[in-house]
Amino acid sequence: MLTRAPHLFDDATRVTAGDSRWQGQTSDDYWAFVGPFGGATAATILRALIDHPQRSGDPLALTVNFCAPIAEGDFDLDLRLVKANRSSQHWSVELTQGGADVATLATAVFAERRPSWSHQPAQFPQAKPFEQILPYPKIAASWANQYDFRFVEGYPDFSGSNKEAPASAFSKLWIGDRVPRKIDLLSLMSMSDAFFARVFHARRELVPFGTVSLTTYFHVGAEDLAAEDISRVLAVADAKIFHKSYGDQNGELWSPGGRLLATTTQIAYFKA
Amino acid sequence: MLTRAPHLFDDATRVTAGDSRWQGQTSDDYWAFVGPFGGATAATILRALIDHPQRSGDPLALTVNFCAPIAEGDFDLDLRLVKANRSSQHWSVELTQGGADVATLATAVFAERRPSWSHQPAQFPQAKPFEQILPYPKIAASWANQYDFRFVEGYPDFSGSNKEAPASAFSKLWIGDRVPRKIDLLSLMSMSDAFFARVFHARRELVPFGTVSLTTYFHVGAEDLAAEDISRVLAVADAKIFHKSYGDQNGELWSPGGRLLATTTQIAYFKA
Repeated sequence: MLTRAPHLFDDATRVTAGDSRWQGQTSDDYWAFVGPFGGATAATILRALIDHPQRSGDPLALTVNFCAPIAEGDFDLDLRLVKANRSSQHWSVELTQGGADVATLATAVFAERRPSWSHQPAQFPQAKPFEQILPYPKIAASWANQYDFRFVEGYPDFSGSNKEAPASAFSKLWIGDRVPRKIDLLSLMSMSDAFFARVFHARRELVPFGTVSLTTYFHVGAEDLAAEDISRVLAVADAKIFHKSYGDQNGELWSPGGRLLATTTQIAYFKA
Repeated sequence: MLTRAPHLFDDATRVTAGDSRWQGQTSDDYWAFVGPFGGATAATILRALIDHPQRSGDPLALTVNFCAPIAEGDFDLDLRLVKANRSSQHWSVELTQGGADVATLATAVFAERRPSWSHQPAQFPQAKPFEQILPYPKIAASWANQYDFRFVEGYPDFSGSNKEAPASAFSKLWIGDRVPRKIDLLSLMSMSDAFFARVFHARRELVPFGTVSLTTYFHVGAEDLAAEDISRVLAVADAKIFHKSYGDQNGELWSPGGRLLATTTQIAYFKA
Protein backbone atom coordinates (compact mmCIF):
# COMPACT_ATOMS: atom_id res chain seq x y z
CA MET A 1 0.00 0.00 0.00
CA LEU A 2 2.80 2.43 0.82
CA THR A 3 4.26 4.33 -2.10
CA ARG A 4 7.80 3.53 -3.04
CA ALA A 5 8.46 6.76 -4.90
CA PRO A 6 9.82 9.71 -2.90
CA HIS A 7 6.97 11.04 -0.79
CA LEU A 8 5.94 14.69 -0.88
CA PHE A 9 6.58 14.85 2.86
CA ASP A 10 10.16 13.69 2.45
CA ASP A 11 10.66 16.24 -0.27
CA ALA A 12 9.13 19.00 1.88
CA THR A 13 11.35 18.19 4.87
CA ARG A 14 14.54 17.54 2.89
CA VAL A 15 17.75 18.96 4.35
CA THR A 16 21.23 19.46 3.00
CA ALA A 17 23.96 18.66 5.48
CA GLY A 18 26.51 21.25 6.49
CA ASP A 19 28.99 21.35 9.30
CA SER A 20 26.93 23.09 11.93
CA ARG A 21 24.83 24.97 9.36
CA TRP A 22 22.32 22.95 7.35
CA GLN A 23 19.90 24.01 4.65
CA GLY A 24 16.21 23.42 4.08
CA GLN A 25 13.46 25.01 2.05
CA THR A 26 9.77 25.72 2.38
CA SER A 27 7.38 23.57 0.38
CA ASP A 28 4.36 24.71 -1.63
CA ASP A 29 2.81 21.35 -0.79
CA TYR A 30 2.83 22.11 2.94
CA TRP A 31 1.84 25.75 2.90
CA ALA A 32 -0.47 27.37 5.45
CA PHE A 33 -2.18 30.70 4.94
CA VAL A 34 0.77 33.00 5.62
CA GLY A 35 3.77 30.70 5.79
CA PRO A 36 4.91 27.11 5.85
CA PHE A 37 2.93 24.61 7.92
CA GLY A 38 4.61 24.60 11.35
CA GLY A 39 4.56 20.81 11.51
CA ALA A 40 6.67 20.60 8.36
CA THR A 41 9.12 23.14 9.78
CA ALA A 42 9.34 21.16 13.02
CA ALA A 43 9.84 17.91 11.11
CA THR A 44 12.56 19.51 8.98
CA ILE A 45 14.39 20.59 12.15
CA LEU A 46 13.99 17.09 13.57
CA ARG A 47 15.27 15.53 10.33
CA ALA A 48 18.41 17.67 10.42
CA LEU A 49 19.02 16.64 14.03
CA ILE A 50 18.42 12.94 13.35
CA ASP A 51 20.71 13.06 10.31
CA HIS A 52 23.45 14.92 12.17
CA PRO A 53 26.62 12.79 12.49
CA GLN A 54 26.98 13.71 16.19
CA ARG A 55 23.41 12.73 17.04
CA SER A 56 23.07 9.77 19.35
CA GLY A 57 19.89 8.17 20.69
CA ASP A 58 16.24 8.79 19.92
CA PRO A 59 14.39 12.10 20.12
CA LEU A 60 12.64 12.50 23.45
CA ALA A 61 11.44 16.12 23.42
CA LEU A 62 11.28 18.84 20.80
CA THR A 63 10.20 22.40 21.56
CA VAL A 64 9.77 24.76 18.62
CA ASN A 65 9.25 28.49 19.14
CA PHE A 66 7.89 30.22 16.08
CA CYS A 67 9.49 33.67 16.40
CA ALA A 68 8.70 35.29 13.06
CA PRO A 69 7.16 34.41 9.71
CA ILE A 70 9.23 32.21 7.41
CA ALA A 71 9.23 33.43 3.81
CA GLU A 72 8.86 31.13 0.84
CA GLY A 73 12.24 29.72 -0.13
CA ASP A 74 15.48 28.52 1.42
CA PHE A 75 16.44 28.66 5.05
CA ASP A 76 19.49 27.86 7.15
CA LEU A 77 19.48 25.68 10.24
CA ASP A 78 22.19 26.26 12.80
CA LEU A 79 22.45 23.09 14.85
CA ARG A 80 24.34 23.19 18.10
CA LEU A 81 24.99 20.29 20.45
CA VAL A 82 24.74 22.27 23.67
CA LYS A 83 25.52 19.41 26.04
CA ALA A 84 26.20 15.71 25.60
CA ASN A 85 25.99 13.29 28.50
CA ARG A 86 26.60 9.58 28.64
CA SER A 87 23.08 8.76 27.53
CA SER A 88 21.43 12.03 26.50
CA GLN A 89 22.02 15.04 24.26
CA HIS A 90 20.69 18.59 24.37
CA TRP A 91 20.49 20.49 21.09
CA SER A 92 19.60 24.01 20.09
CA VAL A 93 18.50 24.92 16.55
CA GLU A 94 18.07 28.35 14.99
CA LEU A 95 16.33 28.80 11.67
CA THR A 96 17.27 31.92 9.72
CA GLN A 97 16.81 33.19 6.17
CA GLY A 98 19.43 35.23 4.35
CA GLY A 99 21.33 36.02 7.53
CA ALA A 100 18.36 37.88 9.04
CA ASP A 101 16.93 37.47 12.56
CA VAL A 102 16.05 34.06 13.94
CA ALA A 103 12.64 32.99 12.61
CA THR A 104 12.35 29.72 14.53
CA LEU A 105 14.13 28.66 17.71
CA ALA A 106 14.08 25.04 18.82
CA THR A 107 15.52 22.90 21.57
CA ALA A 108 15.66 19.13 21.47
CA VAL A 109 16.57 16.32 23.81
CA PHE A 110 17.80 12.98 22.50
CA ALA A 111 18.33 9.94 24.71
CA GLU A 112 19.42 6.32 24.65
CA ARG A 113 16.29 4.67 25.96
CA ARG A 114 17.04 1.69 28.14
CA PRO A 115 14.54 -1.03 29.02
CA SER A 116 12.60 -0.23 32.20
CA TRP A 117 9.35 -0.81 33.99
CA SER A 118 6.55 0.17 31.60
CA HIS A 119 3.09 1.43 32.36
CA GLN A 120 0.58 3.30 30.23
CA PRO A 121 -2.11 4.85 32.45
CA ALA A 122 -3.59 6.87 29.58
CA GLN A 123 -6.64 5.27 28.04
CA PHE A 124 -6.77 4.46 24.33
CA PRO A 125 -9.59 6.53 22.84
CA GLN A 126 -12.45 4.48 21.46
CA ALA A 127 -12.97 5.15 17.76
CA LYS A 128 -14.79 3.96 14.70
CA PRO A 129 -12.42 2.28 12.25
CA PHE A 130 -10.67 4.56 9.75
CA GLU A 131 -12.26 2.74 6.81
CA GLN A 132 -15.78 3.54 8.02
CA ILE A 133 -15.26 7.32 8.02
CA LEU A 134 -15.16 9.65 5.03
CA PRO A 135 -12.01 11.73 4.59
CA TYR A 136 -12.26 15.42 5.44
CA PRO A 137 -12.60 17.36 2.16
CA LYS A 138 -9.78 19.37 0.63
CA ILE A 139 -9.42 22.99 1.74
CA ALA A 140 -7.56 26.12 0.68
CA ALA A 141 -4.43 25.50 2.77
CA SER A 142 -2.25 23.06 0.83
CA TRP A 143 -0.71 21.44 3.94
CA ALA A 144 -4.05 20.11 5.12
CA ASN A 145 -4.59 18.39 1.79
CA GLN A 146 -1.48 16.27 2.31
CA TYR A 147 -3.28 14.65 5.22
CA ASP A 148 -6.17 12.24 5.35
CA PHE A 149 -8.20 13.48 8.33
CA ARG A 150 -11.11 11.29 9.40
CA PHE A 151 -13.05 12.81 12.26
CA VAL A 152 -14.48 10.53 14.91
CA GLU A 153 -15.58 13.41 17.15
CA GLY A 154 -15.50 17.17 16.77
CA TYR A 155 -16.12 17.33 13.05
CA PRO A 156 -15.24 20.91 12.08
CA ASP A 157 -18.06 23.38 11.75
CA PHE A 158 -16.45 26.63 10.68
CA SER A 159 -19.70 28.20 9.53
CA GLY A 160 -19.48 30.98 12.08
CA SER A 161 -22.92 30.17 13.43
CA ASN A 162 -23.41 30.93 17.09
CA LYS A 163 -19.76 31.78 17.55
CA GLU A 164 -20.15 33.52 20.91
CA ALA A 165 -21.59 30.41 22.57
CA PRO A 166 -18.49 28.21 22.62
CA ALA A 167 -18.57 24.78 21.03
CA SER A 168 -16.41 21.92 22.26
CA ALA A 169 -12.71 22.31 21.53
CA PHE A 170 -12.21 18.55 21.64
CA SER A 171 -11.39 16.53 18.52
CA LYS A 172 -10.78 12.86 17.94
CA LEU A 173 -9.61 11.87 14.49
CA TRP A 174 -7.55 9.52 12.43
CA ILE A 175 -4.60 11.20 10.73
CA GLY A 176 -2.65 9.61 7.90
CA ASP A 177 -0.74 11.00 4.96
CA ARG A 178 -3.09 11.48 1.99
CA VAL A 179 -0.56 9.49 -0.04
CA PRO A 180 0.04 6.73 2.49
CA ARG A 181 3.47 6.78 4.11
CA LYS A 182 4.74 4.63 6.95
CA ILE A 183 4.70 6.66 10.17
CA ASP A 184 8.16 7.57 11.43
CA LEU A 185 9.32 10.07 14.02
CA LEU A 186 9.34 12.82 11.40
CA SER A 187 5.73 12.39 10.36
CA LEU A 188 4.75 11.93 14.00
CA MET A 189 6.37 15.30 14.76
CA SER A 190 4.53 16.92 11.89
CA MET A 191 1.20 15.32 12.83
CA SER A 192 1.58 16.65 16.37
CA ASP A 193 0.99 20.09 14.82
CA ALA A 194 -1.63 18.94 12.32
CA PHE A 195 -4.71 19.62 14.41
CA PHE A 196 -6.90 22.48 13.28
CA ALA A 197 -6.66 25.38 15.70
CA ARG A 198 -8.73 24.73 18.82
CA VAL A 199 -10.10 28.26 18.59
CA PHE A 200 -11.61 27.43 15.17
CA HIS A 201 -13.52 24.57 16.78
CA ALA A 202 -14.54 26.51 19.88
CA ARG A 203 -15.76 29.52 17.88
CA ARG A 204 -16.95 27.61 14.81
CA GLU A 205 -15.07 30.03 12.58
CA LEU A 206 -11.64 30.71 11.15
CA VAL A 207 -9.86 33.60 12.86
CA PRO A 208 -6.29 34.91 12.57
CA PHE A 209 -4.17 32.30 14.34
CA GLY A 210 -0.55 31.31 14.83
CA THR A 211 1.22 28.75 16.96
CA VAL A 212 3.79 30.46 19.17
CA SER A 213 5.40 27.51 20.96
CA LEU A 214 5.00 23.78 20.38
CA THR A 215 6.36 20.95 22.54
CA THR A 216 6.15 17.29 21.60
CA TYR A 217 7.35 14.31 23.64
CA PHE A 218 8.07 10.99 21.95
CA HIS A 219 7.16 7.86 23.85
CA VAL A 220 8.60 5.44 21.30
CA GLY A 221 12.02 5.14 19.77
CA ALA A 222 12.65 4.87 16.04
CA GLU A 223 12.86 1.08 16.15
CA ASP A 224 9.72 0.67 18.27
CA LEU A 225 7.86 2.86 15.84
CA ALA A 226 9.17 1.07 12.76
CA ALA A 227 8.01 -2.21 14.30
CA GLU A 228 4.49 -0.79 14.68
CA ASP A 229 4.45 -0.54 10.87
CA ILE A 230 1.52 1.85 10.66
CA SER A 231 0.45 4.53 8.22
CA ARG A 232 -1.98 6.42 10.44
CA VAL A 233 -2.49 7.49 14.04
CA LEU A 234 -5.55 8.01 16.18
CA ALA A 235 -5.27 11.50 17.57
CA VAL A 236 -7.07 13.54 20.20
CA ALA A 237 -6.70 17.22 20.94
CA ASP A 238 -8.35 19.61 23.36
CA ALA A 239 -7.94 23.08 24.85
CA LYS A 240 -8.18 24.25 28.43
CA ILE A 241 -8.33 27.99 28.04
CA PHE A 242 -8.55 30.91 25.63
CA HIS A 243 -7.69 34.21 27.26
CA LYS A 244 -6.25 37.59 26.26
CA SER A 245 -5.34 36.54 22.71
CA TYR A 246 -3.68 33.22 23.55
CA GLY A 247 -5.01 29.69 23.88
CA ASP A 248 -3.53 26.30 24.60
CA GLN A 249 -3.81 22.89 23.00
CA ASN A 250 -2.87 19.46 24.27
CA GLY A 251 -2.95 16.28 22.25
CA GLU A 252 -2.10 12.60 22.04
CA LEU A 253 -1.07 10.49 19.05
CA TRP A 254 -1.85 6.78 19.31
CA SER A 255 -1.02 3.76 17.19
CA PRO A 256 -4.14 1.94 15.96
CA GLY A 257 -3.06 -0.95 18.19
CA GLY A 258 -3.38 1.16 21.34
CA ARG A 259 0.13 2.40 22.02
CA LEU A 260 0.68 6.03 23.02
CA LEU A 261 3.33 7.26 20.59
CA ALA A 262 3.57 10.96 21.38
CA THR A 263 2.03 13.70 23.50
CA THR A 264 2.03 17.33 22.49
CA THR A 265 1.10 20.76 23.73
CA GLN A 266 1.17 24.22 22.24
CA ILE A 267 0.27 27.80 22.96
CA ALA A 268 -1.08 29.89 20.14
CA TYR A 269 -2.08 33.43 19.32
CA PHE A 270 -5.59 34.13 18.08
CA LYS A 271 -7.57 37.23 17.22
CA ALA A 272 -11.22 37.06 18.23
CA MET B 1 -1.14 36.92 56.87
CA LEU B 2 1.66 37.32 54.33
CA THR B 3 5.14 37.88 55.68
CA ARG B 4 6.68 41.27 55.08
CA ALA B 5 10.26 40.17 55.64
CA PRO B 6 12.20 38.88 52.64
CA HIS B 7 10.84 35.45 51.85
CA LEU B 8 13.12 32.42 51.51
CA PHE B 9 11.83 31.95 47.99
CA ASP B 10 12.88 35.45 46.98
CA ASP B 11 16.27 34.85 48.48
CA ALA B 12 16.60 31.50 46.72
CA THR B 13 15.72 32.96 43.32
CA ARG B 14 17.67 36.24 43.71
CA VAL B 15 19.62 37.41 40.67
CA THR B 16 22.28 40.01 40.13
CA ALA B 17 21.87 41.97 36.94
CA GLY B 18 24.57 42.05 34.32
CA ASP B 19 24.58 43.17 30.74
CA SER B 20 23.67 39.93 29.02
CA ARG B 21 25.26 37.81 31.75
CA TRP B 22 23.44 37.64 35.08
CA GLN B 23 24.30 35.79 38.27
CA GLY B 24 22.32 33.55 40.56
CA GLN B 25 23.12 30.96 43.22
CA THR B 26 21.72 27.69 44.44
CA SER B 27 19.87 27.68 47.76
CA ASP B 28 20.19 25.18 50.57
CA ASP B 29 16.55 25.91 51.35
CA TYR B 30 15.42 24.61 47.95
CA TRP B 31 17.68 21.61 47.59
CA ALA B 32 16.60 18.30 46.08
CA PHE B 33 18.50 15.06 46.54
CA VAL B 34 21.34 15.67 44.08
CA GLY B 35 21.00 19.32 43.10
CA PRO B 36 18.82 22.39 43.35
CA PHE B 37 15.06 21.97 43.05
CA GLY B 38 14.29 22.46 39.35
CA GLY B 39 11.35 24.74 40.09
CA ALA B 40 13.66 27.18 41.90
CA THR B 41 16.09 27.10 38.97
CA ALA B 42 13.25 27.74 36.53
CA ALA B 43 11.93 30.59 38.70
CA THR B 44 15.40 32.12 38.92
CA ILE B 45 15.65 32.09 35.12
CA LEU B 46 12.20 33.65 34.89
CA ARG B 47 13.12 36.31 37.44
CA ALA B 48 16.20 37.30 35.45
CA LEU B 49 14.08 37.58 32.29
CA ILE B 50 11.33 39.59 33.99
CA ASP B 51 13.92 41.92 35.54
CA HIS B 52 15.79 42.39 32.25
CA PRO B 53 15.57 46.00 31.01
CA GLN B 54 14.75 44.85 27.47
CA ARG B 55 11.91 42.60 28.60
CA SER B 56 8.48 43.65 27.46
CA GLY B 57 5.14 41.98 28.11
CA ASP B 58 4.18 39.03 30.29
CA PRO B 59 5.66 35.54 30.21
CA LEU B 60 3.61 33.22 28.06
CA ALA B 61 5.74 30.08 27.80
CA LEU B 62 8.89 28.86 29.47
CA THR B 63 10.69 25.66 28.52
CA VAL B 64 13.58 24.55 30.69
CA ASN B 65 15.88 21.72 29.63
CA PHE B 66 17.93 20.33 32.49
CA CYS B 67 21.12 19.29 30.69
CA ALA B 68 23.49 18.46 33.54
CA PRO B 69 23.62 18.63 37.34
CA ILE B 70 24.02 22.08 38.88
CA ALA B 71 26.59 22.14 41.69
CA GLU B 72 26.04 24.00 44.94
CA GLY B 73 27.05 27.63 44.55
CA ASP B 74 27.00 30.43 42.02
CA PHE B 75 25.92 30.21 38.42
CA ASP B 76 25.83 32.53 35.42
CA LEU B 77 22.79 33.17 33.27
CA ASP B 78 23.37 34.23 29.69
CA LEU B 79 20.18 35.94 28.54
CA ARG B 80 19.70 36.52 24.85
CA LEU B 81 16.78 38.29 23.21
CA VAL B 82 16.65 36.11 20.10
CA LYS B 83 13.81 37.94 18.37
CA ALA B 84 11.57 40.86 19.28
CA ASN B 85 8.34 41.54 17.43
CA ARG B 86 5.80 44.27 17.87
CA SER B 87 4.00 42.41 20.64
CA SER B 88 6.12 39.40 21.52
CA GLN B 89 9.67 38.47 22.48
CA HIS B 90 11.63 35.25 22.19
CA TRP B 91 14.45 34.64 24.66
CA SER B 92 17.10 32.02 25.13
CA VAL B 93 18.88 31.45 28.46
CA GLU B 94 21.94 29.35 29.20
CA LEU B 95 22.95 28.53 32.76
CA THR B 96 26.63 27.74 33.29
CA GLN B 97 28.98 27.43 36.24
CA GLY B 98 32.59 28.54 36.15
CA GLY B 99 32.64 28.74 32.36
CA ALA B 100 31.92 25.01 31.99
CA ASP B 101 29.32 23.37 29.72
CA VAL B 102 25.71 24.52 29.71
CA ALA B 103 23.88 22.94 32.67
CA THR B 104 20.41 24.34 31.91
CA LEU B 105 19.04 25.59 28.60
CA ALA B 106 15.79 27.54 28.50
CA THR B 107 13.63 29.33 25.97
CA ALA B 108 10.93 31.80 26.86
CA VAL B 109 8.19 33.69 25.06
CA PHE B 110 6.89 37.01 26.40
CA ALA B 111 3.86 38.78 24.96
CA GLU B 112 1.71 41.86 25.34
CA ARG B 113 -1.61 40.24 26.02
CA ARG B 114 -4.47 42.16 24.49
CA PRO B 115 -8.13 41.78 25.52
CA SER B 116 -9.92 39.11 23.49
CA TRP B 117 -12.72 36.62 23.56
CA SER B 118 -12.24 34.47 26.67
CA HIS B 119 -13.33 30.92 27.30
CA GLN B 120 -12.17 28.37 29.84
CA PRO B 121 -13.34 24.89 28.82
CA ALA B 122 -11.22 23.18 31.49
CA GLN B 123 -13.19 22.25 34.58
CA PHE B 124 -12.16 23.51 37.98
CA PRO B 125 -11.30 20.45 40.10
CA GLN B 126 -13.59 19.92 43.05
CA ALA B 127 -11.65 19.95 46.30
CA LYS B 128 -12.04 20.01 50.05
CA PRO B 129 -11.00 23.39 51.46
CA PHE B 130 -7.33 23.87 52.27
CA GLU B 131 -8.11 24.48 55.93
CA GLN B 132 -9.77 21.09 56.30
CA ILE B 133 -6.69 19.11 55.22
CA LEU B 134 -3.54 18.41 57.21
CA PRO B 135 -0.27 19.56 55.68
CA TYR B 136 1.98 16.89 54.21
CA PRO B 137 4.77 16.19 56.74
CA LYS B 138 8.33 17.39 56.29
CA ILE B 139 10.69 15.16 54.34
CA ALA B 140 14.43 14.83 53.71
CA ALA B 141 14.52 17.08 50.64
CA SER B 142 14.62 20.68 51.87
CA TRP B 143 12.74 22.14 48.86
CA ALA B 144 9.60 20.19 49.68
CA ASN B 145 9.57 21.62 53.18
CA GLN B 146 9.25 25.15 51.80
CA TYR B 147 5.84 24.15 50.49
CA ASP B 148 2.60 23.46 52.25
CA PHE B 149 1.17 20.50 50.33
CA ARG B 150 -2.35 19.43 51.22
CA PHE B 151 -3.44 16.38 49.31
CA VAL B 152 -7.06 16.12 48.20
CA GLU B 153 -6.46 12.98 46.13
CA GLY B 154 -3.45 10.78 45.54
CA TYR B 155 -1.91 11.07 49.00
CA PRO B 156 1.63 9.73 48.62
CA ASP B 157 2.28 6.16 49.63
CA PHE B 158 5.97 5.58 49.05
CA SER B 159 6.10 2.43 51.17
CA GLY B 160 7.13 0.29 48.23
CA SER B 161 4.27 -2.10 48.82
CA ASN B 162 2.91 -3.79 45.73
CA LYS B 163 5.08 -1.68 43.46
CA GLU B 164 4.67 -3.84 40.35
CA ALA B 165 0.88 -3.32 40.28
CA PRO B 166 0.70 0.34 39.36
CA ALA B 167 -1.18 2.79 41.54
CA SER B 168 -2.83 5.89 40.16
CA ALA B 169 -0.42 8.59 39.00
CA PHE B 170 -3.03 11.29 39.56
CA SER B 171 -2.73 13.86 42.33
CA LYS B 172 -4.93 16.75 43.38
CA LEU B 173 -3.51 19.03 46.04
CA TRP B 174 -3.33 22.51 47.41
CA ILE B 175 0.11 24.07 47.14
CA GLY B 176 1.16 27.15 49.06
CA ASP B 177 4.46 28.37 50.39
CA ARG B 178 5.03 27.01 53.91
CA VAL B 179 5.71 30.60 54.96
CA PRO B 180 2.77 32.21 53.17
CA ARG B 181 3.74 34.38 50.18
CA LYS B 182 1.44 36.01 47.65
CA ILE B 183 1.48 33.97 44.44
CA ASP B 184 3.23 35.70 41.56
CA LEU B 185 4.48 34.43 38.24
CA LEU B 186 7.75 33.33 39.85
CA SER B 187 6.16 31.15 42.49
CA LEU B 188 3.68 29.85 39.90
CA MET B 189 6.64 28.78 37.75
CA SER B 190 8.26 27.07 40.68
CA MET B 191 5.04 25.35 41.76
CA SER B 192 4.59 23.99 38.24
CA ASP B 193 7.59 21.77 39.04
CA ALA B 194 6.62 21.09 42.66
CA PHE B 195 4.67 17.89 42.10
CA PHE B 196 6.28 14.73 43.43
CA ALA B 197 7.44 12.54 40.57
CA ARG B 198 4.55 10.69 38.96
CA VAL B 199 6.63 7.51 38.98
CA PHE B 200 6.86 7.69 42.81
CA HIS B 201 3.05 7.65 42.96
CA ALA B 202 2.59 4.98 40.31
CA ARG B 203 5.18 2.65 41.89
CA ARG B 204 4.56 3.65 45.51
CA GLU B 205 8.30 4.07 46.01
CA LEU B 206 11.12 6.55 45.51
CA VAL B 207 13.34 5.69 42.56
CA PRO B 208 16.17 7.60 40.88
CA PHE B 209 14.45 10.41 39.00
CA GLY B 210 15.25 13.62 37.15
CA THR B 211 13.21 16.06 35.11
CA VAL B 212 14.71 16.40 31.64
CA SER B 213 12.48 19.03 30.05
CA LEU B 214 9.75 21.19 31.58
CA THR B 215 7.31 23.47 29.75
CA THR B 216 4.90 25.82 31.51
CA TYR B 217 2.32 28.09 29.90
CA PHE B 218 0.95 31.09 31.77
CA HIS B 219 -2.69 31.91 31.28
CA VAL B 220 -2.62 35.09 33.36
CA GLY B 221 -0.50 38.19 33.19
CA ALA B 222 1.31 39.67 36.18
CA GLU B 223 -1.49 42.18 36.86
CA ASP B 224 -4.27 39.61 36.57
CA LEU B 225 -2.43 37.40 39.00
CA ALA B 226 -1.72 40.21 41.46
CA ALA B 227 -5.43 41.03 41.42
CA GLU B 228 -6.26 37.43 42.38
CA ASP B 229 -4.34 38.11 45.60
CA ILE B 230 -3.87 34.47 46.58
CA SER B 231 -1.27 32.56 48.54
CA ARG B 232 -2.05 29.05 47.30
CA VAL B 233 -3.15 27.19 44.20
CA LEU B 234 -5.22 24.10 43.63
CA ALA B 235 -3.10 21.81 41.49
CA VAL B 236 -3.66 18.58 39.61
CA ALA B 237 -1.06 16.39 37.94
CA ASP B 238 -1.17 13.13 36.07
CA ALA B 239 0.94 10.93 33.82
CA LYS B 240 0.06 9.19 30.57
CA ILE B 241 2.96 6.83 30.11
CA PHE B 242 6.15 5.40 31.61
CA HIS B 243 8.29 3.61 29.08
CA LYS B 244 11.96 2.81 28.50
CA SER B 245 13.23 4.97 31.36
CA TYR B 246 11.16 8.09 30.65
CA GLY B 247 7.74 9.21 31.78
CA ASP B 248 5.60 12.28 31.27
CA GLN B 249 3.64 14.56 33.57
CA ASN B 250 0.95 17.10 32.83
CA GLY B 251 -0.55 19.48 35.31
CA GLU B 252 -2.78 22.46 35.96
CA LEU B 253 -2.51 25.24 38.56
CA TRP B 254 -5.77 26.91 39.54
CA SER B 255 -6.66 29.89 41.66
CA PRO B 256 -8.96 28.97 44.58
CA GLY B 257 -11.61 31.07 42.81
CA GLY B 258 -11.64 28.79 39.76
CA ARG B 259 -9.34 30.48 37.30
CA LEU B 260 -6.81 28.41 35.36
CA LEU B 261 -3.49 30.17 35.97
CA ALA B 262 -0.96 27.87 34.32
CA THR B 263 -0.64 24.53 32.57
CA THR B 264 2.54 22.51 32.62
CA THR B 265 4.08 19.38 31.18
CA GLN B 266 7.39 17.62 31.64
CA ILE B 267 9.29 14.55 30.62
CA ALA B 268 11.51 12.89 33.17
CA TYR B 269 14.04 10.12 33.49
CA PHE B 270 13.46 7.33 36.00
CA LYS B 271 15.20 4.13 36.94
CA ALA B 272 12.84 1.27 37.78
